[in-house]
Amino acid sequence: MSDVRVDHERHARTNVPEVIFGASKTREQIERIARELYAGAGFALATRVAERDGEALAAILPDARYFATARVLQCGALPRTRTRIGVACAGTSDLPVAEEAARTLDAFGHDVVERYDVGVAGLHRALASRDELDSCRVVIVVAGMEGALPSVIAGLVRSPVIAVPTSVGYGASFGGLAALLAMLNSCAPGVSVVNIDNGFGAACVAHKIVSSQQ
Amino acid sequence: MSDVRVDHERHARTNVPEVIFGASKTREQIERIARELYAGAGFALATRVAERDGEALAAILPDARYFATARVLQCGALPRTRTRIGVACAGTSDLPVAEEAARTLDAFGHDVVERYDVGVAGLHRALASRDELDSCRVVIVVAGMEGALPSVIAGLVRSPVIAVPTSVGYGASFGGLAALLAMLNSCAPGVSVVNIDNGFGAACVAHKIVSSQQ
Amino acid sequence: MSDVRVDHERHARTNVPEVIFGASKTREQIERIARELYAGAGFALATRVAERDGEALAAILPDARYFATARVLQCGALPRTRTRIGVACAGTSDLPVAEEAARTLDAFGHDVVERYDVGVAGLHRALASRDELDSCRVVIVVAGMEGALPSVIAGLVRSPVIAVPTSVGYGASFGGLAALLAMLNSCAPGVSVVNIDNGFGAACVAHKIVSSQQ
Amino acid sequence: MSDVRVDHERHARTNVPEVIFGASKTREQIERIARELYAGAGFALATRVAERDGEALAAILPDARYFATARVLQCGALPRTRTRIGVACAGTSDLPVAEEAARTLDAFGHDVVERYDVGVAGLHRALASRDELDSCRVVIVVAGMEGALPSVIAGLVRSPVIAVPTSVGYGASFGGLAALLAMLNSCAPGVSVVNIDNGFGAACVAHKIVSSQQ
Amino acid sequence: MSDVRVDHERHARTNVPEVIFGASKTREQIERIARELYAGAGFALATRVAERDGEALAAILPDARYFATARVLQCGALPRTRTRIGVACAGTSDLPVAEEAARTLDAFGHDVVERYDVGVAGLHRALASRDELDSCRVVIVVAGMEGALPSVIAGLVRSPVIAVPTSVGYGASFGGLAALLAMLNSCAPGVSVVNIDNGFGAACVAHKIVSSQQ
Amino acid sequence: MSDVRVDHERHARTNVPEVIFGASKTREQIERIARELYAGAGFALATRVAERDGEALAAILPDARYFATARVLQCGALPRTRTRIGVACAGTSDLPVAEEAARTLDAFGHDVVERYDVGVAGLHRALASRDELDSCRVVIVVAGMEGALPSVIAGLVRSPVIAVPTSVGYGASFGGLAALLAMLNSCAPGVSVVNIDNGFGAACVAHKIVSSQQ
Amino acid sequence: MSDVRVDHERHARTNVPEVIFGASKTREQIERIARELYAGAGFALATRVAERDGEALAAILPDARYFATARVLQCGALPRTRTRIGVACAGTSDLPVAEEAARTLDAFGHDVVERYDVGVAGLHRALASRDELDSCRVVIVVAGMEGALPSVIAGLVRSPVIAVPTSVGYGASFGGLAALLAMLNSCAPGVSVVNIDNGFGAACVAHKIVSSQQ
Amino acid sequence: MSDVRVDHERHARTNVPEVIFGASKTREQIERIARELYAGAGFALATRVAERDGEALAAILPDARYFATARVLQCGALPRTRTRIGVACAGTSDLPVAEEAARTLDAFGHDVVERYDVGVAGLHRALASRDELDSCRVVIVVAGMEGALPSVIAGLVRSPVIAVPTSVGYGASFGGLAALLAMLNSCAPGVSVVNIDNGFGAACVAHKIVSSQQ
Repeated sequence: MSDVRVDHERHARTNVPEVIFGASKTREQIERIARELYAGAGFALATRVAERDGEALAAILPDARYFATARVLQCGALPRTRTRIGVACAGTSDLPVAEEAARTLDAFGHDVVERYDVGVAGLHRALASRDELDSCRVVIVVAGMEGALPSVIAGLVRSPVIAVPTSVGYGASFGGLAALLAMLNSCAPGVSVVNIDNGFGAACVAHKIVSSQQ
Repeated sequence: MSDVRVDHERHARTNVPEVIFGASKTREQIERIARELYAGAGFALATRVAERDGEALAAILPDARYFATARVLQCGALPRTRTRIGVACAGTSDLPVAEEAARTLDAFGHDVVERYDVGVAGLHRALASRDELDSCRVVIVVAGMEGALPSVIAGLVRSPVIAVPTSVGYGASFGGLAALLAMLNSCAPGVSVVNIDNGFGAACVAHKIVSSQQ
Repeated sequence: MSDVRVDHERHARTNVPEVIFGASKTREQIERIARELYAGAGFALATRVAERDGEALAAILPDARYFATARVLQCGALPRTRTRIGVACAGTSDLPVAEEAARTLDAFGHDVVERYDVGVAGLHRALASRDELDSCRVVIVVAGMEGALPSVIAGLVRSPVIAVPTSVGYGASFGGLAALLAMLNSCAPGVSVVNIDNGFGAACVAHKIVSSQQ
Repeated sequence: MSDVRVDHERHARTNVPEVIFGASKTREQIERIARELYAGAGFALATRVAERDGEALAAILPDARYFATARVLQCGALPRTRTRIGVACAGTSDLPVAEEAARTLDAFGHDVVERYDVGVAGLHRALASRDELDSCRVVIVVAGMEGALPSVIAGLVRSPVIAVPTSVGYGASFGGLAALLAMLNSCAPGVSVVNIDNGFGAACVAHKIVSSQQ
Repeated sequence: MSDVRVDHERHARTNVPEVIFGASKTREQIERIARELYAGAGFALATRVAERDGEALAAILPDARYFATARVLQCGALPRTRTRIGVACAGTSDLPVAEEAARTLDAFGHDVVERYDVGVAGLHRALASRDELDSCRVVIVVAGMEGALPSVIAGLVRSPVIAVPTSVGYGASFGGLAALLAMLNSCAPGVSVVNIDNGFGAACVAHKIVSSQQ
Repeated sequence: MSDVRVDHERHARTNVPEVIFGASKTREQIERIARELYAGAGFALATRVAERDGEALAAILPDARYFATARVLQCGALPRTRTRIGVACAGTSDLPVAEEAARTLDAFGHDVVERYDVGVAGLHRALASRDELDSCRVVIVVAGMEGALPSVIAGLVRSPVIAVPTSVGYGASFGGLAALLAMLNSCAPGVSVVNIDNGFGAACVAHKIVSSQQ
Repeated sequence: MSDVRVDHERHARTNVPEVIFGASKTREQIERIARELYAGAGFALATRVAERDGEALAAILPDARYFATARVLQCGALPRTRTRIGVACAGTSDLPVAEEAARTLDAFGHDVVERYDVGVAGLHRALASRDELDSCRVVIVVAGMEGALPSVIAGLVRSPVIAVPTSVGYGASFGGLAALLAMLNSCAPGVSVVNIDNGFGAACVAHKIVSSQQ
Repeated sequence: MSDVRVDHERHARTNVPEVIFGASKTREQIERIARELYAGAGFALATRVAERDGEALAAILPDARYFATARVLQCGALPRTRTRIGVACAGTSDLPVAEEAARTLDAFGHDVVERYDVGVAGLHRALASRDELDSCRVVIVVAGMEGALPSVIAGLVRSPVIAVPTSVGYGASFGGLAALLAMLNSCAPGVSVVNIDNGFGAACVAHKIVSSQQ
């Protein structure tokens, strides 16, 4: 039976390095691929790593850190770019997804501007964060429930907004479907959307946007 | 075969007068029921009346007016109450639904505060309308697409918000489903929701709210 | 990383005090926020608090009670208003949602009229509860399965009806979707709807309705 | 290419005669099959026949009548059975479906008890029709929108209830889906359901129920 | 807080005795209601009783038996009627639902004809069971996956068919939705449908059908 | 702006010739591409051609025929293969889809065995067609409504069954979704499924199956 | 009643000029707003303009052109930026959406690289377009049916991909839902998605991406 | 109560031997049926057998092997056919489904060509596997997430493609629905689809295809 085969040329071809999706892998599989990637490029990143595995791997892998809220395991880092990228959400429930995006971007070398207290039902905070987010080249906006925050932010800033619906909610949120549909129907121009809870995917889009600029 | 039977006691029992749903009736049926209701109570109201029928009926029915955008036909009016009720939406596309609510409330005797230019992608207008909407006992908020406006308004005012999703949109709006789900998942407390495009239903809820106060 | 930030002005701005949504918080987080809220306003309320946490917190927080069926933790109370608000449902399965609404309203200072034995398949009980529910300024009607009870009640009383679908049922109830759709399509005027299982949300709507009357 | 082939033995095998579904057939096809069926059994029935075709065919086919509301074309009739079967609905919008059931049952030889003014928002009428419907061996209950009527009727009578959802409604009725789901989740025992708008199907179920009794 | 209240007149009013839905009740609640019902009418039935509770209660309740596959607990029985009612399904997976129907009918006093080996992919067995099922006054057909069996059986017998979709399947069965939709769209006249996995509901419909015949 | 570009090598690469999907093209576009394909390979086929266009084009294109029920336009034909392929459906409503498959297969050179009178509610016909369909290398089974026919046929024959759901039906058929889901959940092994109404697609699968045999 | 109010500051605030959504407006409304916008900024753009209206308006508005496939009406243009943006799709059916994106980008001043012949079932063309698309700062990929093209392109180029599902298809495409879901689940990093058929929205995202670079 | 009854003639009638679906059976039931089948035909196969049961049964059943990734238990084998059948997928997550297909086909006697490293975001591998897959009589393509791989493969090879969507993914994959819809809408001719995760079903289709060739 075949095993996991690493696509080393992907970084050159697509501007995004190969990253380990930890959700469907054992601790041993994550360790082996991380070592292989780090040996090749001095950098390895794994997402959706459970806390128990993440803490254990961070203790044995080279140059490694584990971020529990984000569930991200990082070995080494890509060179710093000084590009500012914003990550905004309304609060505690959406933090794991927002942090997955933020930690991925930081590992990719970018400066992350985090605003985790902006909700649509308290506009003063959205307005207060306007200048800071407007100074970023891209803004990732994470929201569950009614998914309205990307529309509000996109009406305030000049940067493109990448919207990430989360599965936060219950009942008629249908696992994030309500937020997803809301974001796809945003009346504010300049909003594009990634899959539910896909903080990593949003970070990749933002990374490709700022990397294709040079 | 049975015919339409008017429930004259409904007004006393439920605080809402019997109103004609014009969508599934012929011009002759609307005329006959309107005459019967007006003869009994000096008041008749019909919603979803097509323009051709509405103009023709307004010309022959007693004390009648027809509102084309709202598709509402009115004969007489209930006594003025001086109660202020707000109706807000973002603009042209949602006007028929907002106007259906506004004209129904006006016919029921209330003072309607209309703000038809508040959208989530331009918060300055929502903020500018705050004091006016906050002075109303109830605010009806009509929105299609991502349906985010009720959350924004409910975060700004003390009055309860009745949210009306509209079928305005295309693609992943799925005929108003996106707006409906967003409103049901509102993170702002104090929002309740009626059926898609149901401006009349929102007006009835608002009317019952202010009528049960005496 | 940012932490939970309390929006102390929300009460003044929206007539609803900040309330703790316990479902996504640890016992420690609930305790900390409850102490902070109680210190500021002499009142704190938390919903969706698991029994184990609720009993423990009720023992250590000031002026605290825990209601197991409702999963509500309360410290202090808002001033009594003497306003009557009805809460109706058909029986045991819907009790947690109905009680969440009832205990929230009681904590907000209102007199709650509870009728937990009215089902559509036994109309005599609905009719027997008519006068009592008709004397309330608002009636919250909680129902799972076919979600027909709000239509029946709204045809009997003058007060506005806030309908709460519950996820009670199986198979084609699809987690409360059947009840939700039924309520949105109510043929009885004056019914508005909140999210599935959202007893707290219905209480907030009712509270805003009776609070905007003064 | 093959053509329509009549299954003459179906009546003996299943207790239901072959009936023409007119919706997908030309006037000529309906005429030809009706003549063939009538020649064989002295009886032919076609449903979903458009008014223009129905009136024309009623004028030329033997022993024929056309019912416009029901869209049913009938040639001859089956022997009278004196069995009482109830058909109930709330009013005008559901009439075509209720009448399709009623006219089919009448053609099959049964006595149809029609109550077309019973709605859930006016319980006095449901209660007033109780004895009459309770005297029927089966009751067909037709309803659109929230589809609550079958639950109410099934709680009042001893006969089995066949529920027919209709596509009457808009927005979140989703073409009758809301009513269908409500009926499938009925809390009243003894309710079974047929397809949306399928008045003919409900009549067949009722006919099989009373025919399997001898 | 209110408690469970038994509706003792339901049997007279609707021809179906009050039955305990065990899924949402504790062992103590089931015991208490069963004792109360048995004391009043010499009969009590509970469905969806978990094996551990069922075995324990059968040991202490009067005249009691527990059926593990059906998850049905029975105390006493209604008088035998000698009416034959068929229950058919394709095999092991659908047995719990078929048995729930069969044991309920047996407790209600009817003679149950069980055929649990008829599947659409092996027509010889369906054909072999034809005469036996055709001798029943009603046939309950239980099926998961593509839900085709009711159509096949209804084309073979004169009795009405009550179709019960089950949640058996995976992937695109969507918890029984595929079977439910198939049954609602049956091309065979005389099929009506109850909720997914609702064997008890089908038994009630069959019971009402044969009880309304006297 | 670019125009339609024909992929001449597709036939060699995939064993299926390029075929014109007429639904989204003007008569002039169909004519131009058909002439180009016929000039290159002596064969052109267009599906979903409206009757008016089909008759007109058949009159002017070389070696052309138009099949109205199938909506297929054919110029020339591929060499005869003598391979027998079955096409089965229940009757008139499904004929356009069945004929689209049959005419495509005939144009591709295969011998088509058509059985258009086999329905699940009349098993004698399915049984009567067994030997004929069993002699085919592949059987395409077309069905709307409950979509049960492929399961029945696949339980009778040794050849693989390609199931084609059709949009025939109403209400809970949801445009063919019910039939599609039923077919995907077939309990009979050896059934695979194509898109709703995709008779052409089924023909391509059958053609590839028998062409990959040499 | 309020009328259309132009938000002149939107361009400065969000980097996207106010654009007229022609679908819900009369020819007169489009003309009036276009004149107002052109008078203010020397530029006006309207999308979803029907051919009849577009040709007529292009004849009377200043500096105007109408693009029939794209349904875009343009008066004047923004300054040229020399930034290359790619637009790719598989062919004729998706052209209106691809062209809406392309004409909008051209009007916004960018150089559009159009590749309208790349489909997933003919990879040689996708590979042939690789270098050209890789030279663009952003690539918009438009696809209906299975919506697989964005994944394929995103695996080939370094630029970010904005995916636009189209409603092209039938049956189980469910109006573009199949393509939308596929794109949201893309296994290729760097893909974000806009609403079904929203070519204009994709152009706005691309425009914001390249405009936030300076 | 009836028990499991083996349909020994199914193999002759449908070309597919009776196979044990282990998911809903106890270890004892699997053992008993496997022994009965092996005694009759020298061959038994069980799918969806949990690892603990599979290892235990492989140790005691005659001529038995258990494949953990595939969850397949095999006793004996059918005669080798030397027919090549391809199984392709993108990697680790889809392996259980791909292996279920591969091990079933191997047990049925065919030569399985496995390519488990072909994904749409890395076309070089798909192109590299072209000749090998093109040499197979049928190719089974397994894919989760956006489900695009079958379209890509079907555009490269002459053999028919059987597409198997998997439930691999999260958020808007909706348990494999996204992949399923994508495959049903494939723009590449010659693709047919089986249920989500149904590797066994795909193997049966492939087996029937190559078995009906002789």
